[in-house]
Amino acid sequence: MNYLDTINTFVREQLYPLEPLLLQEGFDAVEPRLEALRQEVKALGLWTPHLPPDFGGMGLPLRDFAQVSEALGRSPLGHYTFNCAAPDIGNMELLHAHGTAEQQARWLRPLAAGEIRSCFAMTEPEHAGSNPVWMSTTARREGDEYVIDGHKWFTTAADGAAFAVVMAVTDAENPKAHRRASQIIVPLATPGFTLVRNISLMGERGSGWLSHGEVRFDGCRVPVSNRIGAEGAGFALAQERLGPGRIHHCMRWIGICERAFDLMCRYAVDRELGPGRPIAGQQVVQHWIADSRADIDAARLLVLDAAAKIDTVGAAAARVEISTIKFFVANVLQRVLDRAIQVHGGLGVTDDTLLAFWWRHERAARIYDGADEVHKDVVARHVLRGYGFDTRRTV
Amino acid sequence: MNYLDTINTFVREQLYPLEPLLLQEGFDAVEPRLEALRQEVKALGLWTPHLPPDFGGMGLPLRDFAQVSEALGRSPLGHYTFNCAAPDIGNMELLHAHGTAEQQARWLRPLAAGEIRSCFAMTEPEHAGSNPVWMSTTARREGDEYVIDGHKWFTTAADGAAFAVVMAVTDAENPKAHRRASQIIVPLATPGFTLVRNISLMGERGSGWLSHGEVRFDGCRVPVSNRIGAEGAGFALAQERLGPGRIHHCMRWIGICERAFDLMCRYAVDRELGPGRPIAGQQVVQHWIADSRADIDAARLLVLDAAAKIDTVGAAAARVEISTIKFFVANVLQRVLDRAIQVHGGLGVTDDTLLAFWWRHERAARIYDGADEVHKDVVARHVLRGYGFDTRRTV
Amino acid sequence: MNYLDTINTFVREQLYPLEPLLLQEGFDAVEPRLEALRQEVKALGLWTPHLPPDFGGMGLPLRDFAQVSEALGRSPLGHYTFNCAAPDIGNMELLHAHGTAEQQARWLRPLAAGEIRSCFAMTEPEHAGSNPVWMSTTARREGDEYVIDGHKWFTTAADGAAFAVVMAVTDAENPKAHRRASQIIVPLATPGFTLVRNISLMGERGSGWLSHGEVRFDGCRVPVSNRIGAEGAGFALAQERLGPGRIHHCMRWIGICERAFDLMCRYAVDRELGPGRPIAGQQVVQHWIADSRADIDAARLLVLDAAAKIDTVGAAAARVEISTIKFFVANVLQRVLDRAIQVHGGLGVTDDTLLAFWWRHERAARIYDGADEVHKDVVARHVLRGYGFDTRRTV
Amino acid sequence: MNYLDTINTFVREQLYPLEPLLLQEGFDAVEPRLEALRQEVKALGLWTPHLPPDFGGMGLPLRDFAQVSEALGRSPLGHYTFNCAAPDIGNMELLHAHGTAEQQARWLRPLAAGEIRSCFAMTEPEHAGSNPVWMSTTARREGDEYVIDGHKWFTTAADGAAFAVVMAVTDAENPKAHRRASQIIVPLATPGFTLVRNISLMGERGSGWLSHGEVRFDGCRVPVSNRIGAEGAGFALAQERLGPGRIHHCMRWIGICERAFDLMCRYAVDRELGPGRPIAGQQVVQHWIADSRADIDAARLLVLDAAAKIDTVGAAAARVEISTIKFFVANVLQRVLDRAIQVHGGLGVTDDTLLAFWWRHERAARIYDGADEVHKDVVARHVLRGYGFDTRRTV
Repeated sequence: MNYLDTINTFVREQLYPLEPLLLQEGFDAVEPRLEALRQEVKALGLWTPHLPPDFGGMGLPLRDFAQVSEALGRSPLGHYTFNCAAPDIGNMELLHAHGTAEQQARWLRPLAAGEIRSCFAMTEPEHAGSNPVWMSTTARREGDEYVIDGHKWFTTAADGAAFAVVMAVTDAENPKAHRRASQIIVPLATPGFTLVRNISLMGERGSGWLSHGEVRFDGCRVPVSNRIGAEGAGFALAQERLGPGRIHHCMRWIGICERAFDLMCRYAVDRELGPGRPIAGQQVVQHWIADSRADIDAARLLVLDAAAKIDTVGAAAARVEISTIKFFVANVLQRVLDRAIQVHGGLGVTDDTLLAFWWRHERAARIYDGADEVHKDVVARHVLRGYGFDTRRTV
Repeated sequence: MNYLDTINTFVREQLYPLEPLLLQEGFDAVEPRLEALRQEVKALGLWTPHLPPDFGGMGLPLRDFAQVSEALGRSPLGHYTFNCAAPDIGNMELLHAHGTAEQQARWLRPLAAGEIRSCFAMTEPEHAGSNPVWMSTTARREGDEYVIDGHKWFTTAADGAAFAVVMAVTDAENPKAHRRASQIIVPLATPGFTLVRNISLMGERGSGWLSHGEVRFDGCRVPVSNRIGAEGAGFALAQERLGPGRIHHCMRWIGICERAFDLMCRYAVDRELGPGRPIAGQQVVQHWIADSRADIDAARLLVLDAAAKIDTVGAAAARVEISTIKFFVANVLQRVLDRAIQVHGGLGVTDDTLLAFWWRHERAARIYDGADEVHKDVVARHVLRGYGFDTRRTV
Repeated sequence: MNYLDTINTFVREQLYPLEPLLLQEGFDAVEPRLEALRQEVKALGLWTPHLPPDFGGMGLPLRDFAQVSEALGRSPLGHYTFNCAAPDIGNMELLHAHGTAEQQARWLRPLAAGEIRSCFAMTEPEHAGSNPVWMSTTARREGDEYVIDGHKWFTTAADGAAFAVVMAVTDAENPKAHRRASQIIVPLATPGFTLVRNISLMGERGSGWLSHGEVRFDGCRVPVSNRIGAEGAGFALAQERLGPGRIHHCMRWIGICERAFDLMCRYAVDRELGPGRPIAGQQVVQHWIADSRADIDAARLLVLDAAAKIDTVGAAAARVEISTIKFFVANVLQRVLDRAIQVHGGLGVTDDTLLAFWWRHERAARIYDGADEVHKDVVARHVLRGYGFDTRRTV
Repeated sequence: MNYLDTINTFVREQLYPLEPLLLQEGFDAVEPRLEALRQEVKALGLWTPHLPPDFGGMGLPLRDFAQVSEALGRSPLGHYTFNCAAPDIGNMELLHAHGTAEQQARWLRPLAAGEIRSCFAMTEPEHAGSNPVWMSTTARREGDEYVIDGHKWFTTAADGAAFAVVMAVTDAENPKAHRRASQIIVPLATPGFTLVRNISLMGERGSGWLSHGEVRFDGCRVPVSNRIGAEGAGFALAQERLGPGRIHHCMRWIGICERAFDLMCRYAVDRELGPGRPIAGQQVVQHWIADSRADIDAARLLVLDAAAKIDTVGAAAARVEISTIKFFVANVLQRVLDRAIQVHGGLGVTDDTLLAFWWRHERAARIYDGADEVHKDVVARHVLRGYGFDTRRTV
């Protein structure tokens, strides 16, 4: 049995049974059970699949990890259990590529081992998330320290994290907006850090890994050696992070689509509208199934193609492909979930299936990591540049 | 100031400020504050607007009540505060039209006064809600009593209700499926009744009026005089209830649309993508606004037209119009909410605005009271009958 | 029998039978037959329904004429036969409201009598039709004459027309762009006028009334008394024309929708996919029927509401409503035609039914008289102005 | 320069310039010019790319031919000029795979050489094209001859063809509906054959290769040796034809999409809405470009994936993939054309660009070779069979 089959079986047999607990009681209730499973995943050699073996991982290239991500995406517990869930995966990739030996020893090793969690503090309530170079958080240099002041939200999994990677302006006067900010590691035990609240999102405040924090940094002091990469490289590093990150998300969404598709088909076959009249006999439902099948298959090919391009020429050169999949797949996801819910009728809006969970949580798929509109702007700008037109000119 | 203006002002000034509490803490937290406001509504002479004056209401015909319903729909607290929220409004209309003097005295009066709450137990987990004549709950006659056994869910507001109107089979052998069931009043204090749970819906278990119960009736005994209308009239009464009920819902949805539209426009104008670049400057957002304006205006005219038809010729004769608005408006609602959320970006999925609340709660609008597909079947059947074709024949 | 019934019957009994000839042989082939029918329409007192009785018409207000327009729209021959087809209707309304006694005697009388045809020359190939104040055609004053030079296209029905109303710049230097042009009557026999070609549109060059000309004015001289209204009033008059004009179009489209809907239902019932399996038995087709029914009904209410507003407060005050219906109904039209064609299968793309004719001719509905995008811009501008935002500011 | 580049250059430099003639004057006008180009294509070694070298072709596997088909699809003259246009390509593939040596010598050789044209007579006006086993045309055996009687339409390119491959019932009593018909070569010079008419489709009767005939076979006698394959194999052969045939169409459509996309971008950049305000500056247009880019790229990957599967495991095993691309790509095509037309405004509906040609001709893409609905039925049936449900059971 190859590793993908092993993962699929593990997800189905070990994680599916825990999902009702997650849906009814929340992540805190299910976390202890996941600890044992994480050890099992390590024992199976499937742990941290995105990292190289010397960090305890499988060393998969992006195209292969993409397929793992789809497999794990079928359960909301998949990525966490295999230690490749956002935001930790992004921080691991960042520290692996750009961390100093000391940073790797202190932060990457325990992250890779699953001993701590981390978060990424970038978006600010006062500024549009779609404009990544517009922020108010500052890191003022004082001797060997940065003094960080700022207000962030959508700091996913801040609740219980050991540290945050914080995007902060280190050179406000730089004429190049893209060179003003840096990424800095801030241990959350640092005085001045506050988790203001876990933001209630779509009716759920969440906890631990499954939460999204509003946080404050009030005069947080950290050594300059906590900066990742060069000063002013914050935006560039963020961009680098987002390329693979969007592949991860897209393939996770395809995993969700496949699960929702499976739930839709099963329920259509099992549930009757009347004695001997299963929902699957409805032609409109059959056509939703056909449309969903086509949508998902097309989406997967598009993502794998982009992943192969990143593996070959790098994320920067695949920027347009990445934007393309970001909005295309997020919209396929919403459509497939919508159809699956409709097939389930009243049950579809209860928390007795996963569909409502994803309907709530993944409405944000069209927003986070760049809203649909931002990515369409990117694609159009690229295309029209080929025709000699600059979409950023004022018209 | 006419009463619609008064209501609009009241909703905006008295109810809007309470919404954050509802969104962050739930209905229990806000309920005490609503009590005072309900008294104020009574004092303003706007209480129970759908009931005639001798029951303390405004005596509005459906077409006028429709506009009140839109006004109240702008806040999730509107209908409750004016004592015309589902499911009580349906029970009030039912008891007013078909209750005996004794039933009216015992149940309708306190409902109309807002002293008690009620619920309606029809849908069963074991049977598709879209097939209203297929149920397992029975009311077995024993002398002057019915003994009721059954399992229901989506019994909205069962938590804390004084009584349920229960749909139960009283004549299982009747060759006409539509004549098998009756509607029976069951006080929830009756031995044998259990509120199994408030169903967790879209991440929220809810409480009190804002909850949806799974309930059991195990040998509940009630006097035969608790039956509403004739034995076997249950389905007919349910249909009668649904005609105006769908107008109420549709106009409430239009109220939601208008509020979401207003939130969308305000945010688009106030929020900047960059210094001096408000979202409202984005042409795609401008076109969402135009599309939403057209969708909402068309939807309202269609509903008011159906309401006028019900007032004139009755709900039965307006059956097709009612089905038409049910699916048309529910889909407009989903589109408008979707656009409003997208404009809000990350904020749109938080519980810091109403949008996520409605996105979660009103995904069910395309399902409850007949799924889109059921109503499209009704409209198509009617149209094709005019061409000599019966869609129910097997093909 | 009221006049609407009479019109409906006339269209069905007299015009439907001529449609195959139109579809197979073109307008020239059918025109002679229409002459006799036009006399019959006069005899029935249904001629030129939009003009007052002293010009031989029915004197209907816009809201009533709207319903006539729907009835006539069910056949592509309807409006022509009742002498209320574009572009003549617009010219008649224009001359009636703003023509001098002499202009009315010379041009309006014979138009109203159906003795001549006319055209309206506004759009230019070199400039976007969506920008009505940007044009190159000039009318230079020389003594008592205008000398007109210009190039126009989409001059509907120029082929065989007696005169054109030409939009030409009379004051290029006016700082107000909206005050630069005037409308001037140019008899097509004027030296310097050329019908360059009937533009081939969607595979059809057309002829006579059913054609769209590309025309040139090279030094055409006409007396100044041929100007309609004040100098510089050209744009204002065009706007005034377009208000009712869009009602006409929208109601004509609704007539098309109803005819397509009827063709769709008939064919679905009559055509079998296999022995005993009519298309109408397909649930997806049934739902297209339901969706079309809802779309058409909503569209009609929206148009009638706008027409009533124009009747009450005038076209200028109803500008936003007019823009709303323009794009809303044009899109309903395209969807309904698309579904009707799909139901007809191969037959749907042949010229054996009207569907392909309309699919070709009415793709332009989303373009002429202002593209969808122009009207959405108008609606959004109006809405956002209410929130203090000017969409025309540069962002 | 590889052959794809050569083909792209040829299409752009040699065929694009002839398109205006096709659009304005029709195929007859352009055909003589194409003859010289066909010789040039032969000289370049790019002729009949789908056939093996011993029949004068390039011997490309389907996956490679698919890319040629996209390149050729950018012009409506592409496939014809390279001798791989429907319906000849299907007949060539059929005769190559199943023709006797004699049939190949007599019919395939001259077809492959481009000396004659052929047609395929399957669909009948009296029966739904979507039901391929339901037909009335019969081939009655009399000694060594078949006597063929029947009525067909959508017999593409019958006008001027040397022979037809006719689908006719040879064994009406066979209990297996799929075994009743055979495919038989009928030279069109055979007495009893009539080309009733070139059907006027979307306003165009067409001629020669670019026409669609309604034909009759009245007692046409052909030798039994004209039958292709076994008696009763007609349906199986038709299915075999359609697998690759749908790849051809889908890739041709993608070629159309790319051309329309290019036209859209060019026009958006070149055309101004006002001085200095090109259409490309409109954000809604930019987003149509982005959506189109994503749609086309996803569609291509899906088709190439299906083509690779056909190459590997055969058309029968790839049946579901073929159905998936058929409806998915046909709908992408319609959307892309729709957006490109809208960007072109009035020009988009004229025959001064290719867009209107394709809008008219390719509305049928969602109908021919199996309507959307037929293919969605196929996909859903396959999926639901995996869940133990047979969609063909009566429900």
